[in-house]
Amino acid sequence: MKKFINNYENMIDEYLKGFVALHNDKVERKEERVVIRKGAPVEGKVGIITGGGSGHDPFLIGSIGKGMVDAVAIGNIFAAPGVQICYDTIKAADSGKGVLVCIGNYSGDLMNFGIAVDMLREEGKDIEVIIMNDDVASAPKDKKDNRRGIAGEIIMFKTMGAMADLGFELKALKKAGDEIIYNTRSLGVAHTACIMPSSGKPSFKIGDDEMEIGIGHHGEPGIKRVKMMSADETTDFIMEKILEDLPFKNNDEVAVLLNGLGSTALSEMYIVFNRAKDILKSKGIKVYRSYIGEYITSMEMGGFSITLTKLDKDTKKFIDHPCDAVHFVQV
Amino acid sequence: MKKFINNYENMIDEYLKGFVALHNDKVERKEERVVIRKGAPVEGKVGIITGGGSGHDPFLIGSIGKGMVDAVAIGNIFAAPGVQICYDTIKAADSGKGVLVCIGNYSGDLMNFGIAVDMLREEGKDIEVIIMNDDVASAPKDKKDNRRGIAGEIIMFKTMGAMADLGFELKALKKAGDEIIYNTRSLGVAHTACIMPSSGKPSFKIGDDEMEIGIGHHGEPGIKRVKMMSADETTDFIMEKILEDLPFKNNDEVAVLLNGLGSTALSEMYIVFNRAKDILKSKGIKVYRSYIGEYITSMEMGGFSITLTKLDKDTKKFIDHPCDAVHFVQV
Repeated sequence: MKKFINNYENMIDEYLKGFVALHNDKVERKEERVVIRKGAPVEGKVGIITGGGSGHDPFLIGSIGKGMVDAVAIGNIFAAPGVQICYDTIKAADSGKGVLVCIGNYSGDLMNFGIAVDMLREEGKDIEVIIMNDDVASAPKDKKDNRRGIAGEIIMFKTMGAMADLGFELKALKKAGDEIIYNTRSLGVAHTACIMPSSGKPSFKIGDDEMEIGIGHHGEPGIKRVKMMSADETTDFIMEKILEDLPFKNNDEVAVLLNGLGSTALSEMYIVFNRAKDILKSKGIKVYRSYIGEYITSMEMGGFSITLTKLDKDTKKFIDHPCDAVHFVQV
Repeated sequence: MKKFINNYENMIDEYLKGFVALHNDKVERKEERVVIRKGAPVEGKVGIITGGGSGHDPFLIGSIGKGMVDAVAIGNIFAAPGVQICYDTIKAADSGKGVLVCIGNYSGDLMNFGIAVDMLREEGKDIEVIIMNDDVASAPKDKKDNRRGIAGEIIMFKTMGAMADLGFELKALKKAGDEIIYNTRSLGVAHTACIMPSSGKPSFKIGDDEMEIGIGHHGEPGIKRVKMMSADETTDFIMEKILEDLPFKNNDEVAVLLNGLGSTALSEMYIVFNRAKDILKSKGIKVYRSYIGEYITSMEMGGFSITLTKLDKDTKKFIDHPCDAVHFVQV
């Protein structure tokens, strides 16, 4: 297997040791599987927490820092963290102003965080949960609640982290968060599987000349398996699906996030952006701010996703708010 | 070919169009193949420029911004930019305080920038050149001037950009730059080739269970082709070669840069850092600041490099100086 690991059993522990050692100015390890912002809980603000399976770096722990996430519950590769980890993570972020749990729509995460939230509410803690479901490929529009969360989770962290940093109360975060999730739509494409470190096997099978639109971050089925298309053809297809889904309309203002899944070169993603911006312009949709890079990967998976979030006066302020997370710095 | 491009001929142009559109708050396109910091030349400071072949993103244009690079000459994939591009790039960064040309030790770049520098000096421009040669694999220690430049170039941009931002004169940058280059040593490993967009073929051949230590960013030969080793074994080998090369000694303070070549997951690189930090500690070498991520890639190549730079009182200040480049923000 072509991975720089020592053995699968120690992989997560060694990775977290390296992470915490390198970023010891910003993070600390609270429990074996809980990483927190240094000094968390931060007095006087709502705690922002997340968690989920590993294997998506810089996603999850890379978002820890001022203006984004306060604590993260760490699971094994592509596996939800256990209930106790979720419980400890939420508790570690609570300064008394309550905690917003920001997770993706995956059954293991929903179940384990759900139990932890129930336990903590019984202890009198003030906790709200928001669940990102931005992936338009994973269920029809009228069943948005069944859709998976993908790169839109970064927009969720960015905006909720900003609101908490600006001193908003938990109820306001929950309300705005649910609206931002509703206004966020993504679609991805992958042509190369990642290699599972447990087995050394690819996470899905795909032909040498094929790609799959809408395939999930863990290899969940997409909506269309086709021969490799050009950058423009791929972008046209993805943008059409996203735009018609909300739908995004003339005079809307949007944040655009182009997320690399692992091995796709940044230069290819700029070619995709070059087409996406022209499509948006032709529809009269204004690009307010754009992000490009690897935010949520699947190790060495090849492909990318496009995320659009419709913004208003308030959400533009939250998008613009500076943050200083480990792998997401905005000045 | 599994790449999101339209056709090879337009690839660089479309990529630059996307780049400049997305980052129009920080950069502008000056000529077809010259990208500059918005508003460059910056009055009252030495201009910092670089250039080289494309295919290494975010390297080169991602370093444009306050506290780093003012202008970049863009070549085709893995090919040096032409003389006119080099000439225009240097000129675009000159506010009258002179220009420092910061390049890697590759024959095409040396030749074309060399001719451009001669032309501009004849016009009375004040120009100095520094050449990164950090790759310990590419020539013996007593022939350091023959070595290739790899990820150490990021340290060169960071420190020279800081000095220029702090108002140092060109002569001081040239002197400090040559010392920083001398004190910078790197070594990389790759197990998977990139795919050349011109041909659809891999940049080098390697077995399904093999990796090569010291292989260059364009597939140039390394020092040792072996069966895949564990993260710790690989790190031990690389660190020993780097440490003995300067040599780095007890009580030295260093900057560490772990650079992903494209498809290697960040989690693997944290496992490598976890070992590297223990090795440095055991030798009494203090890690002053560390960087981890994809800085100089070779598209979808799999592997990473480690760079160490020995620091002193002044260079620590330059490493710490804030910068706001497109893909390198330090607050």
